[in-house]
Amino acid sequence: MKTPSNSILTVGSLAFDTIQTPAGNAEAALGGSGNFFSIAASFYAPVQVVGVVGDDFPQSHLDWLKDRQIDTSGIQVSAGKTFHWVGAYDQNLNEAKTLSTALNVFEHFDPVLSPLHRESPYVFLANIDPVLQQKVLDQTPGSRLVACDSMNFWIKGKLEELKKTLRRVDILSINEGEAFLLSGKRNLVSAAEHIRGLGPSVVVIKRGEYGATLFTDAGIFIAPAYPVATVIDPTGAGDSFAGAFMGYLSKAGVDRNLAKSDPAQWNTVLRKAVLAGCVMASFTVEDFSFKRLMRLEAAELAARQNALLGMISV
Amino acid sequence: MKTPSNSILTVGSLAFDTIQTPAGNAEAALGGSGNFFSIAASFYAPVQVVGVVGDDFPQSHLDWLKDRQIDTSGIQVSAGKTFHWVGAYDQNLNEAKTLSTALNVFEHFDPVLSPLHRESPYVFLANIDPVLQQKVLDQTPGSRLVACDSMNFWIKGKLEELKKTLRRVDILSINEGEAFLLSGKRNLVSAAEHIRGLGPSVVVIKRGEYGATLFTDAGIFIAPAYPVATVIDPTGAGDSFAGAFMGYLSKAGVDRNLAKSDPAQWNTVLRKAVLAGCVMASFTVEDFSFKRLMRLEAAELAARQNALLGMISV
Repeated sequence: MKTPSNSILTVGSLAFDTIQTPAGNAEAALGGSGNFFSIAASFYAPVQVVGVVGDDFPQSHLDWLKDRQIDTSGIQVSAGKTFHWVGAYDQNLNEAKTLSTALNVFEHFDPVLSPLHRESPYVFLANIDPVLQQKVLDQTPGSRLVACDSMNFWIKGKLEELKKTLRRVDILSINEGEAFLLSGKRNLVSAAEHIRGLGPSVVVIKRGEYGATLFTDAGIFIAPAYPVATVIDPTGAGDSFAGAFMGYLSKAGVDRNLAKSDPAQWNTVLRKAVLAGCVMASFTVEDFSFKRLMRLEAAELAARQNALLGMISV
Repeated sequence: MKTPSNSILTVGSLAFDTIQTPAGNAEAALGGSGNFFSIAASFYAPVQVVGVVGDDFPQSHLDWLKDRQIDTSGIQVSAGKTFHWVGAYDQNLNEAKTLSTALNVFEHFDPVLSPLHRESPYVFLANIDPVLQQKVLDQTPGSRLVACDSMNFWIKGKLEELKKTLRRVDILSINEGEAFLLSGKRNLVSAAEHIRGLGPSVVVIKRGEYGATLFTDAGIFIAPAYPVATVIDPTGAGDSFAGAFMGYLSKAGVDRNLAKSDPAQWNTVLRKAVLAGCVMASFTVEDFSFKRLMRLEAAELAARQNALLGMISV
């Protein structure tokens, strides 16, 4: 067995989410950044997901991932309970309020990659402890493109470690509020430029229902969210954005070298990848958990991508 | 003297604004929807502005407007004080908090148009009492294109009159929060479709730093705001958006008939007009009052328009 040349490795959480939104509630629904990312990315490329679950995690879901050609051999099943997040959204669906976090088996998670996983050319470090993100980077020195995410918790609690991670990644994908926190700036352009100065030459700032904005050497690309009629649950929108974004890049076969060898092409592919991310996120929010992604058809995905392109064309 | 074939008539306020923003304060700065709209529109087309000021209003500003080829013959100077608005913004610059409103001479404003003003082909009803908006419509039966704005105050206080206005206009330009209030919907697409059902076939929803979204028979166009490095004062952004939007349409010479005779062309011109509005608003917010617009050069305007186009191109 060989690692496919466009394979994406992601290291993140597989979790239960208990969620309240204005549209309703979900009790211990399947979630976690590793889950959302993998499922979204699998529309574009082979995915390897590394994480840990408790012995209460449904085998049927692991089987479902496998059936989708997602390599789950990196998911360790440990004695104990799965990571469980409890959160709520008010009418402002752009920001979740965390009510409780039980790390459970995730607390002692230590990503040790298999030889096959170490060869994955595309790497996405989901929102986990930056010390663990660096451990993954130590094990994937041959990567062609690395992106990462982070959040308030690490920006506040492990800033120096996060900065070490940032110096080693090509792309940071982060929420607007988190970008402000990380940069100390209250303005999108200033925040992105500050963060680009910390390491990643590409910064994608996710803005919930307002879409995402891409910052590169070639300038700014402002992508809107695809406007959906009803938002049920925004949980996982950012991770599925990142999944489709990385999926698009790996399917296009581009890597960090393109930024220098053909900046115009690099820039175009990045812009299309951002749009792919926006479209994927728009499906995610239409139902709780990743239920909408689980029943998403390739034709629906393509149709909405065309529609979004039409909404930004002059 | 004849009314130019692309002339825009606007009826709105000329005012003093006392403003607090995170960037600073302005005491009795020049403002008012009629002012912001006219100055913005004058970059594109001849403008006639109708309103009322008190005898405390600086003649030098009226002279400045005239020097810009803005027809100020419809500005009545009444004994008493000029309309004075006091407002504040917190870190969320998308929404103003009104601290006090002194209507003063504006309280008994009754727009009676001159014969020349009645012939204006383009009409913009700024955010004033919908009863007055209808009075203007009664006097401009030969118009080619009519747009209007409104706000919470009228939606809450004079909804039935506002609905009468809406049945008679082609275009409504309105803030996101106000669109939600007017429609009773909390979703952009549903809100816009509901409002289109009330009369205007074109609805532009202004979203502050997130840009503006256009809804027509041809679908949705999502325009971002031009990202500025520093926002000093958002006051007047919406009115100057509308000024450039209407200005662009009148310069292009399009009217409501084009919607039927050439829907594709109608749609393209509307999209470009929305971008023109976004760019104009981005200059407005860079200083207090319309100071930035008063020193804006055509070349700067063109450069930023090209830049914004580049930021949405794939």
